[in-house]
Amino acid sequence: MSITPENTWASVSAIRDQAPLIHNITNYVVMNSTANALLALGASPVMAHAQEEVEDMVNIASALVINIGTLSAPWVEAMGSAARKAAGRGIPLVLDPVGAGATAYRTQTVRKLMDTVSPTIIRGNASEILALATSEKGETKGVDATESSQNAIEAAHWLNERYGSTVCISGETDFIVGDQVVIGIGNGHPLMTRVTGLGCTASALCGAFAAVNSSFPLAAAQAMAVMGIAGEMAAEISPGPGSLQLHFLDFLYRLTKDDLARRLRISAGAG
Amino acid sequence: MSITPENTWASVSAIRDQAPLIHNITNYVVMNSTANALLALGASPVMAHAQEEVEDMVNIASALVINIGTLSAPWVEAMGSAARKAAGRGIPLVLDPVGAGATAYRTQTVRKLMDTVSPTIIRGNASEILALATSEKGETKGVDATESSQNAIEAAHWLNERYGSTVCISGETDFIVGDQVVIGIGNGHPLMTRVTGLGCTASALCGAFAAVNSSFPLAAAQAMAVMGIAGEMAAEISPGPGSLQLHFLDFLYRLTKDDLARRLRISAGAG
Amino acid sequence: MSITPENTWASVSAIRDQAPLIHNITNYVVMNSTANALLALGASPVMAHAQEEVEDMVNIASALVINIGTLSAPWVEAMGSAARKAAGRGIPLVLDPVGAGATAYRTQTVRKLMDTVSPTIIRGNASEILALATSEKGETKGVDATESSQNAIEAAHWLNERYGSTVCISGETDFIVGDQVVIGIGNGHPLMTRVTGLGCTASALCGAFAAVNSSFPLAAAQAMAVMGIAGEMAAEISPGPGSLQLHFLDFLYRLTKDDLARRLRISAGAG
Repeated sequence: MSITPENTWASVSAIRDQAPLIHNITNYVVMNSTANALLALGASPVMAHAQEEVEDMVNIASALVINIGTLSAPWVEAMGSAARKAAGRGIPLVLDPVGAGATAYRTQTVRKLMDTVSPTIIRGNASEILALATSEKGETKGVDATESSQNAIEAAHWLNERYGSTVCISGETDFIVGDQVVIGIGNGHPLMTRVTGLGCTASALCGAFAAVNSSFPLAAAQAMAVMGIAGEMAAEISPGPGSLQLHFLDFLYRLTKDDLARRLRISAGAG
Repeated sequence: MSITPENTWASVSAIRDQAPLIHNITNYVVMNSTANALLALGASPVMAHAQEEVEDMVNIASALVINIGTLSAPWVEAMGSAARKAAGRGIPLVLDPVGAGATAYRTQTVRKLMDTVSPTIIRGNASEILALATSEKGETKGVDATESSQNAIEAAHWLNERYGSTVCISGETDFIVGDQVVIGIGNGHPLMTRVTGLGCTASALCGAFAAVNSSFPLAAAQAMAVMGIAGEMAAEISPGPGSLQLHFLDFLYRLTKDDLARRLRISAGAG
Repeated sequence: MSITPENTWASVSAIRDQAPLIHNITNYVVMNSTANALLALGASPVMAHAQEEVEDMVNIASALVINIGTLSAPWVEAMGSAARKAAGRGIPLVLDPVGAGATAYRTQTVRKLMDTVSPTIIRGNASEILALATSEKGETKGVDATESSQNAIEAAHWLNERYGSTVCISGETDFIVGDQVVIGIGNGHPLMTRVTGLGCTASALCGAFAAVNSSFPLAAAQAMAVMGIAGEMAAEISPGPGSLQLHFLDFLYRLTKDDLARRLRISAGAG
């Protein structure tokens, strides 16, 4: 199970051909940019959060992406219903624990969700992944938002063992941790951290790749590679984060097999 | 009642002169892009959804646009109150039945709204328009999201007869169906489908045109023509959907009478 | 206390160095653009509105920004809790009374909030500032959305005396009214009014500047100057409001001391 330009291209092509419906229950900040990234990639996004319809929407979706960035009680309830339905149908569930560790409400909500339904893929930054593992273990050591992604690999292994989830830690190098596999992706650009919600977009793209590729660690790695490659291509011609947003969508839309072949940077697994 | 560059320009000029206040109760995904499109056109957008204030806001608005893209119970209640108030004041009500047919909750919400207050204009894609007519007739044939706009014309006539609404079906050709009139607009560009919420933007623009032009089928046709013309001008210089968003707003802002004269494409009515 | 390119640059540099966490409880329309502006400036934005977590979030924030653009009851409750917590911690509270005067619900919500906790900075357009003072005084004269910022200076003085707040009136000239000080900033560009939420962005930037500069009238003036300078630089190369949004973020990100020195326009205080 190693990521290659060829198998990444096969997934991109499958997304473009099939336009899988990706159901997002996500935060207000990124709904627009997430929908646009999924459309640019070739997937079909839908957002729905009402208890009255989330199960019906999961029923026609190819993947479910849950992002806790702007929580409130009715949304938490609907996330639980949607997650159970996704598990029942056997479609991939991606969980983005935005800000886990920052407030008890977020950490507890994510913990409860994970105990209800094991996510297929968990994607967060190092601080968030550490917070999930920490709270689960009952420890209370501080969480530093500036942790490097490598420092969270142990936590990712622990989450993988407990939940069976593929865990994707994004950072300067993205690490994808699955059963007995760690994939490192070195694509991306620092300017991407100055655009809000690109982490959330990465989670949504994990949903699209998981919808067409059931080898989930590979799907997550492909999603992170495509994010990073489109992002670095955009950053190279962008004087600032406003331009980057625009070019990122354009490059995601125009991504070619040759872009993947020239740019894919696999880092040595640090596992 | 035929659309011309001249009468379209007259409406655009009236919007720019009067800056009509368009009250939107719309979905989270498109609030920002909808507001920006209305501002670029020359209208004045406001978003308000609380039961406590929707009637006061309708009271100072020149049109109300209701879009069901991210429903929940409190919003549905406020939509009803706002729609009744709009009817009472005699200002245009535009309804965008996003995802009608995809879940029972959406279809039923729209049906209930329409039974409460007849919309002035209903704007949706072919699948949505078919879903409304289908559910109303009690039939249950499947709804295909890939239906062409022409296939929904019969459903649009049925909705027009029952509710008195102008029905606008967007697609490769946009069809506007009113009493004994079908107008076809051939403007637009396929890249527009890769930007989220341009359909929702079209509905908001219908509100702005209806605020200044009480011949509603004509107002809806003018709105669709302006959308399509700004969109195709943007697409012609855009390498992808990120750029298109940006240029679309710029061209909407800079639209001239000459752009309308050179580009308006009226399709033969298919009715 | 006079604004200079040097002291403005010192604040910008402090924001870039410290990346203060700015907690926003803001409206759906502008969440994305606000977060992007804070990131482009160098601050760290977070959005959280649930009663269950707002106090925890305020607890780790360096400033709180409350914006009433798309109110509803649960949000109003959380705004109150967050504001009290901010006051308790002694971090700056910026209040943006979007649409005060347009509906009774907005005016009353803002009045109640201000009576609970005195805002550090109130930022609005002239109509909104007049509406706050008007309703407080029990008068009911009409509020004209086209009021010039200068006409609201008396109202700003009244609010300053009653609440101790710095009051920032944005308009063609921005006036910042504090204890015995009125600062006028002449930067900006008319095209900025065609982009939704730039007023909301200005409020969020006031939060970032107040987080690093406890001379609040000066912090507010610096925020308005930086907004106006990045905005006018963007407008000068933008054919329309779509381009302006993009370039605004780029110039905010790339702002130099020299840009401030060349462009800062202080207007004679009109107080």
